[in-house]
Amino acid sequence: MNSFGNVFRVSLFGESHGNAIGVIIDGCPPGIPVSPDDFMPDLSRRQSGSRGTTNRHEPDKPEILSGIFNGFTTGSPITVITRNSDRISSDYDDFKNIPRPGHADFVAGVKYSGFADLRGSGHFSGRITWGYVAAGVIAKKILKPAETEAKLISAGGSTDIGKALDEAIADNDTIGGIIECRVHNPMKAIGEPFFYSVESAISHAVFSVPAIKGIEFGSGFSAALMRGSEHNDPFVESTGKTSTNNAGGINGGITNGNEIVFRVAVKPTSSTGVAQNTLDFSTGKMTELKVKGRHDTCIALRMPVIIEAAAAIALADLMMIDRAVNGSRGS
Amino acid sequence: MNSFGNVFRVSLFGESHGNAIGVIIDGCPPGIPVSPDDFMPDLSRRQSGSRGTTNRHEPDKPEILSGIFNGFTTGSPITVITRNSDRISSDYDDFKNIPRPGHADFVAGVKYSGFADLRGSGHFSGRITWGYVAAGVIAKKILKPAETEAKLISAGGSTDIGKALDEAIADNDTIGGIIECRVHNPMKAIGEPFFYSVESAISHAVFSVPAIKGIEFGSGFSAALMRGSEHNDPFVESTGKTSTNNAGGINGGITNGNEIVFRVAVKPTSSTGVAQNTLDFSTGKMTELKVKGRHDTCIALRMPVIIEAAAAIALADLMMIDRAVNGSRGS
Amino acid sequence: MNSFGNVFRVSLFGESHGNAIGVIIDGCPPGIPVSPDDFMPDLSRRQSGSRGTTNRHEPDKPEILSGIFNGFTTGSPITVITRNSDRISSDYDDFKNIPRPGHADFVAGVKYSGFADLRGSGHFSGRITWGYVAAGVIAKKILKPAETEAKLISAGGSTDIGKALDEAIADNDTIGGIIECRVHNPMKAIGEPFFYSVESAISHAVFSVPAIKGIEFGSGFSAALMRGSEHNDPFVESTGKTSTNNAGGINGGITNGNEIVFRVAVKPTSSTGVAQNTLDFSTGKMTELKVKGRHDTCIALRMPVIIEAAAAIALADLMMIDRAVNGSRGS
Amino acid sequence: MNSFGNVFRVSLFGESHGNAIGVIIDGCPPGIPVSPDDFMPDLSRRQSGSRGTTNRHEPDKPEILSGIFNGFTTGSPITVITRNSDRISSDYDDFKNIPRPGHADFVAGVKYSGFADLRGSGHFSGRITWGYVAAGVIAKKILKPAETEAKLISAGGSTDIGKALDEAIADNDTIGGIIECRVHNPMKAIGEPFFYSVESAISHAVFSVPAIKGIEFGSGFSAALMRGSEHNDPFVESTGKTSTNNAGGINGGITNGNEIVFRVAVKPTSSTGVAQNTLDFSTGKMTELKVKGRHDTCIALRMPVIIEAAAAIALADLMMIDRAVNGSRGS
Repeated sequence: MNSFGNVFRVSLFGESHGNAIGVIIDGCPPGIPVSPDDFMPDLSRRQSGSRGTTNRHEPDKPEILSGIFNGFTTGSPITVITRNSDRISSDYDDFKNIPRPGHADFVAGVKYSGFADLRGSGHFSGRITWGYVAAGVIAKKILKPAETEAKLISAGGSTDIGKALDEAIADNDTIGGIIECRVHNPMKAIGEPFFYSVESAISHAVFSVPAIKGIEFGSGFSAALMRGSEHNDPFVESTGKTSTNNAGGINGGITNGNEIVFRVAVKPTSSTGVAQNTLDFSTGKMTELKVKGRHDTCIALRMPVIIEAAAAIALADLMMIDRAVNGSRGS
Repeated sequence: MNSFGNVFRVSLFGESHGNAIGVIIDGCPPGIPVSPDDFMPDLSRRQSGSRGTTNRHEPDKPEILSGIFNGFTTGSPITVITRNSDRISSDYDDFKNIPRPGHADFVAGVKYSGFADLRGSGHFSGRITWGYVAAGVIAKKILKPAETEAKLISAGGSTDIGKALDEAIADNDTIGGIIECRVHNPMKAIGEPFFYSVESAISHAVFSVPAIKGIEFGSGFSAALMRGSEHNDPFVESTGKTSTNNAGGINGGITNGNEIVFRVAVKPTSSTGVAQNTLDFSTGKMTELKVKGRHDTCIALRMPVIIEAAAAIALADLMMIDRAVNGSRGS
Repeated sequence: MNSFGNVFRVSLFGESHGNAIGVIIDGCPPGIPVSPDDFMPDLSRRQSGSRGTTNRHEPDKPEILSGIFNGFTTGSPITVITRNSDRISSDYDDFKNIPRPGHADFVAGVKYSGFADLRGSGHFSGRITWGYVAAGVIAKKILKPAETEAKLISAGGSTDIGKALDEAIADNDTIGGIIECRVHNPMKAIGEPFFYSVESAISHAVFSVPAIKGIEFGSGFSAALMRGSEHNDPFVESTGKTSTNNAGGINGGITNGNEIVFRVAVKPTSSTGVAQNTLDFSTGKMTELKVKGRHDTCIALRMPVIIEAAAAIALADLMMIDRAVNGSRGS
Repeated sequence: MNSFGNVFRVSLFGESHGNAIGVIIDGCPPGIPVSPDDFMPDLSRRQSGSRGTTNRHEPDKPEILSGIFNGFTTGSPITVITRNSDRISSDYDDFKNIPRPGHADFVAGVKYSGFADLRGSGHFSGRITWGYVAAGVIAKKILKPAETEAKLISAGGSTDIGKALDEAIADNDTIGGIIECRVHNPMKAIGEPFFYSVESAISHAVFSVPAIKGIEFGSGFSAALMRGSEHNDPFVESTGKTSTNNAGGINGGITNGNEIVFRVAVKPTSSTGVAQNTLDFSTGKMTELKVKGRHDTCIALRMPVIIEAAAAIALADLMMIDRAVNGSRGS
């Protein structure tokens, strides 16, 4: 279940400290111009290095194994990988006995009967999102002229994100955040109710990303506080433009042509420097755990580009399914 | 795209004023005891009739067409339908020119090029969830001894739900609400990261239900306000029991054996009795629309059982996929 | 696994002696004209009644439950059922202890742990193909101007099919046959290698039909006897027309615009009137079994229309996937 | 559509003269012992080098990128690649104007609008089956104690395969062949009718392999010549063992525990050294084409191991689906 999409289909593979991580993008139309450099702007946005992010540094340079020829997609599966280079596996040796609270250590141990490669959190590492972002680059090209744009709009409950980071770093602790994603100039009439609504597709893609705790579209949770007369978006133009956008650009699971808007909640990085009381499974006694190693104070800083990728991939798949059933739509 | 699930697969069909609505449940294990009466408790919970719900009354009695023999599932697809009887289609004649704000009228017209059956909102009607609930009854049997339980915990922003209803009815308006769903005694180690995490599966299933605007797991959006040291759930027992449950029973996309907890936001019913200024697409001029017909003041009242069904179906599919890959787990 | 297709998706349900059998067709484009009468010509072709077929007579009239409105497909799932009326279940009581050679009695008992409804062979009955044919009617409309045409070209090894039937009836035995299917005026460039070649899609659909033992495309098994210089089809027109058609209209898993041609082998009906020595599982001893009940001397007589349906459904799905990825092609 | 399987899922990628070819195997159970050396016996069987095969020589050594740790599968996707080294692309420059009869040159040009990488036949090359065989190695481990065994039983119509090769080489021509595959000691009761019968799954997997023209199970096409009384396989033991095996080990789309037997027809290699009269699309005139380059006299020589892989992958997927629905079966 490491694939997403019905026609435009993305498959991720790799472990944090394995030989390589990567992605296959299947169902991509031929003739889309792609150069290796096209991947770097988005890949750089998810890289660490700035304040509040881990100091594990990977060059992250993409190597294209298949599917692109003479600068264009060929119609065959596109495979892009990158090597893992900066690996310090000894950081992770203790977690078999004392699984880290908030991590996948415990569940991975149970589910895979002890065979999972958990060095650097293995297949559960945020590093696996590298391929997700690479696939997002292709999906964004397919979606043009629609544009996806995600931003971190608060961290640790504050819109002064720099200040929130300062405080968390001072306390050797970690913080979460809220990311807002907008799709400008979206295609109209895509989405496949009952079971592949726009919200179903995007939320499915988004909740695959580690550390996401919630998603809301348009008015979101505040809709629960509103009256219908207030929440409904009146139409004001024959294009379908509405005067408000509580719907977040989606009615009945189908895009209405207004901007698509959603927000996601990102939890604080589990690997905090603060000591935690938790069980030592080897002794059955409680113990104090201090997680060392290199981690992000605020993983949400690196996630807007991943959320864009998730949205773009979901929408590209929906656009192609709509075209399959209903034929090409005029712009 | 009217199917959900990979192994345990649910397909919904029907329109509000068509001949019948129903569901096919494929991939159901043989030997599960099912009688027609087993469906009624859950189907009754989603029925209208109580204060705040529409006075369209359908007997909703299930007719089993296939897949159940001598009181047990056979292993072949289970088909259950119910006839539509209480149909007043003339209520819906005007919406082609003046699509209702907040409804699918506009997008359905564009997407299906005018061929959609929109009587009673057609395939977009909440009535289609009848089959979803019926499938949920089967899924819940498969999940035993796990139990799903959803409740409306607030409406119109208030926990005094009766009072909120009174006020909305007095104003001839509609209100939204928040539903909380818990899965008690859940199976451990199910969930298929990267792309079929428990949250991906549940959110996909939940956002297929009309009127949902948001979902959050465990701490949810409040995670964005918390420190890592506060958010992490320390293990306290070798079963994997944790002292807090900010994770909502899920780590790394996999159940950890603690209660699964999530909440969904339901928007106020779009069909409010309050007059709305919106476009008449036939004239290109703004006009006042008053939606008549029979509607719910608070559709969220009828939705807990639908949310339970969505969760149960997603979890049944995940449980069966886990069994496919990892074999049967001891209880 | 009672569904076939990725975008155009057909799901079959029902048992021979259950309440009803039927089909859901999902992913069908809106705006296709369909009346209940459109189903009858193909449904009549698969009906019994002529010499060499069973004298079980079902009216087989389709009832449309959803997805068609005002004479056109709506874009929502199309559900069509028919009631089972002519049921004589007592014929089948003995087969639990003495499973019929060549039937599914034994494997169904093992697989479904005794819970399968095997009255009239249940979900294994050829009767389940009723819905397959109904779906084929829709698929053929989508494929226009391409036309599928299947014929029984031999029975019992003879092209004089009447004579072969006479001899088999005289011996109270059953015979098989060969069906050839041609798709005239096929769409060019559909087929999705590596794993959804035209041959993969058609063979998958065809081998779902009971009693099929083999399939071959174009030159088929005789290709194994030929030289490359003889087998290759030289191009003679810039449309892609070739002077021979050993390829059966398919190169590299993709249609080349020449007629698609394949043949299938149908085994003799298992339910022969001739006595068979087989095991009585209740005693562990060999016994003589004479199968009574109503059966076909040559089931292949009724199968050309089912093979057409299988081909049409596979090709409709491939055509829509090609359109999803590559956009609409000019005719 | 470069993936096959529902739970055990194989995805192939790469082009003949691209950077690398490979495979992802998703849904593989954890804890299966795998070393790089385990791949070599089967990979060697599909290699060229013996008489009648091309003199393109690739080391074909597998590089494992993910999913295997400390000598065992981890439960995460297994990615295996190999580099393309022996590439002489100039051989293929002329085929744009004069597409080779019997090849995918023409259809690939149309389908992918000229963007396909057709050097060395690109994604249509038999070289892509390298990853198929690698995935087959894993599938065979899952299927144990069942064993798949395929053999070339005739070539060019003769069982004296050496002589048939001699004659074809002397004529600078190519020949086809028949491969028979048997699965010894097969698991009982797997197969998912209606639409994922054993025959559907295997034929789908087999017809993805280039150059296959036909497949038949058990009695196959000869069933069309037989009487029912002759074709039915009488049970002789309570295990389900039958005295004959016309069914090829499959009843009603489900394995009955007897040996699974099927045969496939392989066409003669299209790239014959004999001159062919075909269209020059650039001039619209017929021309003589002589295909140079390195090719196989009898590609069927290299294909038994590929057919084994196809069968093993299809059966592994079916076994896991059966386990999902029906739980683990005793041996």
